Amino acid sequence: MIIYVLDIIGTFAFAISGVLVAMQKRMDAFGIFIIAFVTAVGGGTLRDVLIGKTPVGWMNDLNYGYAITLAVIFSILFKKRLNKLRKSLFLFDTIGLGVFTIIGVEIGISQQLHPFICIALGTMSASFGGVIRDILCNEIPVIFRKEIYAIACVLGGVTFFVLQYFKLDENVIYISTASMVITIRLLVVKFKIQLPKLYQ
Amino acid sequence: MIIYVLDIIGTFAFAISGVLVAMQKRMDAFGIFIIAFVTAVGGGTLRDVLIGKTPVGWMNDLNYGYAITLAVIFSILFKKRLNKLRKSLFLFDTIGLGVFTIIGVEIGISQQLHPFICIALGTMSASFGGVIRDILCNEIPVIFRKEIYAIACVLGGVTFFVLQYFKLDENVIYISTASMVITIRLLVVKFKIQLPKLYQ
Amino acid sequence: MIIYVLDIIGTFAFAISGVLVAMQKRMDAFGIFIIAFVTAVGGGTLRDVLIGKTPVGWMNDLNYGYAITLAVIFSILFKKRLNKLRKSLFLFDTIGLGVFTIIGVEIGISQQLHPFICIALGTMSASFGGVIRDILCNEIPVIFRKEIYAIACVLGGVTFFVLQYFKLDENVIYISTASMVITIRLLVVKFKIQLPKLYQ
Repeated sequence: MIIYVLDIIGTFAFAISGVLVAMQKRMDAFGIFIIAFVTAVGGGTLRDVLIGKTPVGWMNDLNYGYAITLAVIFSILFKKRLNKLRKSLFLFDTIGLGVFTIIGVEIGISQQLHPFICIALGTMSASFGGVIRDILCNEIPVIFRKEIYAIACVLGGVTFFVLQYFKLDENVIYISTASMVITIRLLVVKFKIQLPKLYQ
Repeated sequence: MIIYVLDIIGTFAFAISGVLVAMQKRMDAFGIFIIAFVTAVGGGTLRDVLIGKTPVGWMNDLNYGYAITLAVIFSILFKKRLNKLRKSLFLFDTIGLGVFTIIGVEIGISQQLHPFICIALGTMSASFGGVIRDILCNEIPVIFRKEIYAIACVLGGVTFFVLQYFKLDENVIYISTASMVITIRLLVVKFKIQLPKLYQ
Repeated sequence: MIIYVLDIIGTFAFAISGVLVAMQKRMDAFGIFIIAFVTAVGGGTLRDVLIGKTPVGWMNDLNYGYAITLAVIFSILFKKRLNKLRKSLFLFDTIGLGVFTIIGVEIGISQQLHPFICIALGTMSASFGGVIRDILCNEIPVIFRKEIYAIACVLGGVTFFVLQYFKLDENVIYISTASMVITIRLLVVKFKIQLPKLYQ
């Protein structure tokens, strides 16, 4: 239940980040809505399609659509004040990252897939909405170049399986996984960590 | 039956619009064919994949492929005269928009999805072929920026459910929905209507 | 069995070609890995999704993931020497093209799809990983503009069905199909053949 509430909050935060990118591209209201939508649920949709869990999630639960619509209206109304909310939004966004990772890993497990694939599904759920957003905005995806939150998701997924191996309680696993994702994400942003450069 | 014939005609018209964009990008014959293909059936394919109706439609009915192949050959042979046919093509294209919307809504209903999702599926069927085309051509999708035919599809879908609520005859619903999509599309083009600007 | 080994070798070669493109775009290690991944298995994944064969192939057989990971590590370690291996890589890549085509055609047949669709699936398996790679790298796909290996796959697929029509032995069909793809590809590259220009 708490996972579900955090999932919706994360969806809301991801959608707002989509709106901001769409506005930079000076899209119209329809474009803004679609970009918000794919940013928020694109990762989970790709995951569901690849494992054959259809109709995809947001088609069976309208709360995702409502959260995204609300996020779009909210952002358009308060676009000048969004800057002041940057810290709260970043927090929600980061919580979303943790929760989406857990959900992706769990779905992989429920389909009896190998832990490596489950970790990939967790990472995909949390970070490929942004990839689809960037493609639709005609940009090379930012997580392929400098943002490294995908690594936070991967390490969160690894944490999940290590703790599961030691048969820890489910809630402990959830909280630890989310904390791992959130902590790494915060550290990365605070200390401006980047992946090692491969080029001179 | 009449829906099926209009569906094939719409596929033909959409394919030609794909050819024109591919030629602007100076693609070779293979590229032109693929762009024509995704413009014509990309929206329906995305819809089928998201709801899990596979193999996707055009794999089980070759008439779509034939219509597209014909459209490509026709456009390459008569490319200099396509300009004179612009009005007829625009008409076919607009009919396609109406028919694809109906088909998408119907498929959503057959899968017992919520009316909101059915309207989204209708809009997707009619307008996301163009989105995939623009991505493959390395452009920000034109319907995210200025073309507003997606709104025509949405309002067509709404019409569908309002009339269904009043238990009108199926054929009346079909004709009204298509007319709504087509009328709005024509009005929009004639009066150069755009979505309200969100930017100064 | 030999098909499987060649499939893995082709995956390795395709992944390296992905790494090279990702490096040109100066992506970080995560981006390089993802681009290598989609180049290698993107075509087969698209095929599986469109026909509804899910979870997609690489989720059930980790050897693909291992081959890609190995290819990424290998390319990063030896990036300065990859140039000298260009000929071997091109050979592996071309073998991959032939094998992927056969696998795609076979899967289409196993789903009782029409020969035209099977040939399309073979071509898609072999050449659409590159399309997805180019989209993620924000380029118009190179096979839509000048590279014509898609034609090699199409003609390979045609060969497959012609020989099957004459009820030849399965192994003869496989070898002939692969040889056709490989020969055309080599001829095209050697003689710099392009599709006829449609433009002045």
